[in-house]
Amino acid sequence: MADQLSTTFAALADPTRRAILSRLTTGEASVTELAQPFDMSLPAVTKHLKVLQRAGLITQGREAQWRPCKLEAKPMREAAAWMEPYRRHWEQRIDRLDQFLRETTPGARRSRTRK
Amino acid sequence: MADQLSTTFAALADPTRRAILSRLTTGEASVTELAQPFDMSLPAVTKHLKVLQRAGLITQGREAQWRPCKLEAKPMREAAAWMEPYRRHWEQRIDRLDQFLRETTPGARRSRTRK
Repeated sequence: MADQLSTTFAALADPTRRAILSRLTTGEASVTELAQPFDMSLPAVTKHLKVLQRAGLITQGREAQWRPCKLEAKPMREAAAWMEPYRRHWEQRIDRLDQFLRETTPGARRSRTRK
Repeated sequence: MADQLSTTFAALADPTRRAILSRLTTGEASVTELAQPFDMSLPAVTKHLKVLQRAGLITQGREAQWRPCKLEAKPMREAAAWMEPYRRHWEQRIDRLDQFLRETTPGARRSRTRK
């Protein structure tokens, strides 16, 4: 069985599933509502919803008629948390590049000190 | 052909590949160095590196002997940027929950106003 992070990332590795999640940030929606913007059969959309549900990214209500889907924050929050060190990594690289440019480019240094 | 975001998330959907990326945040490393912590053959590790390279998450130097792998920031930055609206979504939910608790729980309100 795959670990939670792998399951989350695998679920995000599809443009339709990402579009469904994006739609759900604006509020709950039924399967029919979610299927509407896609040129796709209901069974095809249902298959994507199952992947998102298995990953815990969405849950579906139990009301017999409507059964709205809604976003669950936890898996996405964990995936974002996993990415944090990379954010720091590239921010440090940008800082170093910025410093290098200030030290080596007279024009850049001037424009900084002029402020 | 898959879009860049899907390729990035698919590449991240594996614990070994995530561990390799994590190792590379501390600096460049050769394939042999990357293979060391894993109970895995060099060809198996090379296969994972190829997936990461195809996703643009790492690049490999051209020096004949050492050929160090290094992290590339762009795909991960784009993946993190895609997640931003979800971060706002769950932060808003936490804020609403916090407000609800303050409005409905006398103890919580008291402890806030006491400050």
